[in-house]
Amino acid sequence: MTNPGELSGERASSGESATEGDGAPSKPELSQPAVGRLSLYYRELQRLLESEIGSVNSKSLGKMVNVSPAVVRRDLSSLGTIGRRGVGYDVQTLIDRIGAVLGSGVQWKVVLIGVGSLGDALLRYRGFERLGFQVTAAFDSDPKRIGETIAGVPILDVAELDQVLQQHRPELAIVAVPAEHAVGIAAKLVQGSVSGILNFAPTTLKLPPQVAVVNVDLASELQRLAFRVQMPK
Amino acid sequence: MTNPGELSGERASSGESATEGDGAPSKPELSQPAVGRLSLYYRELQRLLESEIGSVNSKSLGKMVNVSPAVVRRDLSSLGTIGRRGVGYDVQTLIDRIGAVLGSGVQWKVVLIGVGSLGDALLRYRGFERLGFQVTAAFDSDPKRIGETIAGVPILDVAELDQVLQQHRPELAIVAVPAEHAVGIAAKLVQGSVSGILNFAPTTLKLPPQVAVVNVDLASELQRLAFRVQMPK
Repeated sequence: MTNPGELSGERASSGESATEGDGAPSKPELSQPAVGRLSLYYRELQRLLESEIGSVNSKSLGKMVNVSPAVVRRDLSSLGTIGRRGVGYDVQTLIDRIGAVLGSGVQWKVVLIGVGSLGDALLRYRGFERLGFQVTAAFDSDPKRIGETIAGVPILDVAELDQVLQQHRPELAIVAVPAEHAVGIAAKLVQGSVSGILNFAPTTLKLPPQVAVVNVDLASELQRLAFRVQMPK
Repeated sequence: MTNPGELSGERASSGESATEGDGAPSKPELSQPAVGRLSLYYRELQRLLESEIGSVNSKSLGKMVNVSPAVVRRDLSSLGTIGRRGVGYDVQTLIDRIGAVLGSGVQWKVVLIGVGSLGDALLRYRGFERLGFQVTAAFDSDPKRIGETIAGVPILDVAELDQVLQQHRPELAIVAVPAEHAVGIAAKLVQGSVSGILNFAPTTLKLPPQVAVVNVDLASELQRLAFRVQMPK
């Protein structure tokens, strides 16, 4: 689906380039929908691996994410990964290849700013770590929250943000502050040479081209759903 | 941005069609990016109205959401709304037109299932109501949470879900349960004739074509961000 945030200054960054891993071809050109699908395959493949299933064919993988086997084969062949007739794809190889392309082969240091109820939920969310994202610190301005630890992540005073950015050089930041604080926080993050921002604040961040941003606007998602529901067939 | 969930059975529903409102042309065909942009304009226009700003031109509106004035004009002309040279667009008219198209002209009844930390955050999120979404009830299976009220919304026993769906006929549902419960909950929602599901569970829901779904996968969003950050220019 196309998030409205799409338009808000999203840019590829020329920042640190990740290690490519296991002989995959150099970073392929991928459309945003293709990246989305790879991310979905990745999730399902990890489940297969957990269930000790070692191989999968394009038909089964397609069923898991509701796309046709042909689309699966095209997506995977763009990674230089070819299934064998009657055997399918090796699950571990696919995970490694997709992970290398999506950047999950590397560990990313992430900071979170704004520990309101959403920030709190994001800190407790277990999906990030599994994909190689380590939230190293959270920041808030509320004295009642500063000093707390949520899911192993310490909540620091947002006044220390500049200093922590300088010392620890996190690559990514999650912004979950109220709209009126988002622009100021983003400016600090840019100055602290963060390369990418996942923005939950309902406001459009204007960032220099070397900083990537993905916006998640929860109300807009519900609005898009409503639009679909009432759209005549 | 393209959410990986895009592929997961999203369909236009032929469910209740909303009132069209104030003489806007019948529902235009809109691309998903255009819907996303309308949703962003809508947000910024509401801010302008709150600041008692009565008119806006395509250049200013474009700046607010980082698109060119030409794109703004094209999007708005598809709604049959034309700005006047030197004056611009009337803010209230735009809000009414966009609202009618996006379905914010109507009130939507919404239920939320799964009051973990994310569900809790969603209940406290103030962005929904402003757009015409009223969360009427939340459901959980945890006896410690049942009976609580969060942000005015009562938390009911999920065992009562079928009955509440039958009595109150909510159009939309927000699913924030763990992955392993999502499919079962979705089946109940479909049976209870919910028309659209906003799914936060990290799993792909397979739904009949008359039910629309928008998937929000937080880990995938972070993964997409990482992909952008490491992508060479």
